[in-house]
Amino acid sequence: MPQGQPSNVPDDGLTTRQRRNRPLVVVHTGEMKGKSTAAFGLALRGWNQGWSIGVFQFVKSAKWRVGEESAFRALGRLHDESGEGGPVEWHKMGEGWSWTRKKSTEEDHAAAALEGWQEIARRLRDERHGLYVLDEFTYPLHWGWVDVDEVVSTLRERTGHQHVLITGRYAPQALIDAADLVTETSKVKHPMDAGQKGQKGIEW
Amino acid sequence: MPQGQPSNVPDDGLTTRQRRNRPLVVVHTGEMKGKSTAAFGLALRGWNQGWSIGVFQFVKSAKWRVGEESAFRALGRLHDESGEGGPVEWHKMGEGWSWTRKKSTEEDHAAAALEGWQEIARRLRDERHGLYVLDEFTYPLHWGWVDVDEVVSTLRERTGHQHVLITGRYAPQALIDAADLVTETSKVKHPMDAGQKGQKGIEW
Repeated sequence: MPQGQPSNVPDDGLTTRQRRNRPLVVVHTGEMKGKSTAAFGLALRGWNQGWSIGVFQFVKSAKWRVGEESAFRALGRLHDESGEGGPVEWHKMGEGWSWTRKKSTEEDHAAAALEGWQEIARRLRDERHGLYVLDEFTYPLHWGWVDVDEVVSTLRERTGHQHVLITGRYAPQALIDAADLVTETSKVKHPMDAGQKGQKGIEW
Repeated sequence: MPQGQPSNVPDDGLTTRQRRNRPLVVVHTGEMKGKSTAAFGLALRGWNQGWSIGVFQFVKSAKWRVGEESAFRALGRLHDESGEGGPVEWHKMGEGWSWTRKKSTEEDHAAAALEGWQEIARRLRDERHGLYVLDEFTYPLHWGWVDVDEVVSTLRERTGHQHVLITGRYAPQALIDAADLVTETSKVKHPMDAGQKGQKGIEW
């Protein structure tokens, strides 16, 4: 909302432009599914700005979210072929992170989640992406598989212009404290309440 | 969530599959900007299913949401060229609806909004799209420019398999009552509270 006026202007020595362009940590939390879809909707804007988009899905099953993944892979190919938008990398824990090619088993989700985070931390140090989508990353934090204090200090110390978007329920308070933008999506009404199960094109 | 079990199964004479694939009316409301981004994130799934996507933005300025628009127009071109995903049409009230080529002025937003709805009603009767995104359509309803009862009855009577997704604040109760899925996004924390204005790639 470019017309909007901030309710207060901090005495931080930054110009409005510098403050405006500060990279953000965004958290989408709450009980509803809109968290991830809103994250991928936001990533469309970053793609359009030509940013490198890195998606890291901390989900158990590799079969999930085929819709967003296919669309973003298509946008990434479009970039590679025509230079339009930005490049896209899409990684999923459920089938073993693609940079390791190691298959994950039922038992090693904690190890796989930690491995995912360590790769993200490396990329943040290398300023690899303009926008990171850490989809459902709150769960490994909530379960203690990845140390939230280490994540917060890595995010605080990141250099360059890297936005980080984290989705999932049970976002730890330390993460919320460290974030610039936090939204919570709640259910008013859901088809499952009326006995309707999920369907293609809507739920995946 | 395909694994999920509905909390109750209605006695409506439908099989689970019939009930599952019932087209939905979805409303994203609440005070935060995630409403539209979540809608466009959801539309990526529909695009991937090969549905025809029709976007109708009930916004005053044509300069908005360039990120999502560019990305979806790119996906639409990809469909036209390679058959991947579904076709995309993107219409904005702010510059005059593209099917009329009439320029809108400051005074005739009410007329333009009504004209937009009438075109959508025609398309619903013709079963033109698989997914309609009526972005910020709650405002013309809230302000009485478009009659909510007429909208609800048109949505109720629509045939075929047409999903309709409506975003915006102040969703009228009659619309919420008619919807299958309603989410509300609220702010926990926003960079503007810390004096940071909107920035490219994030806010547009």
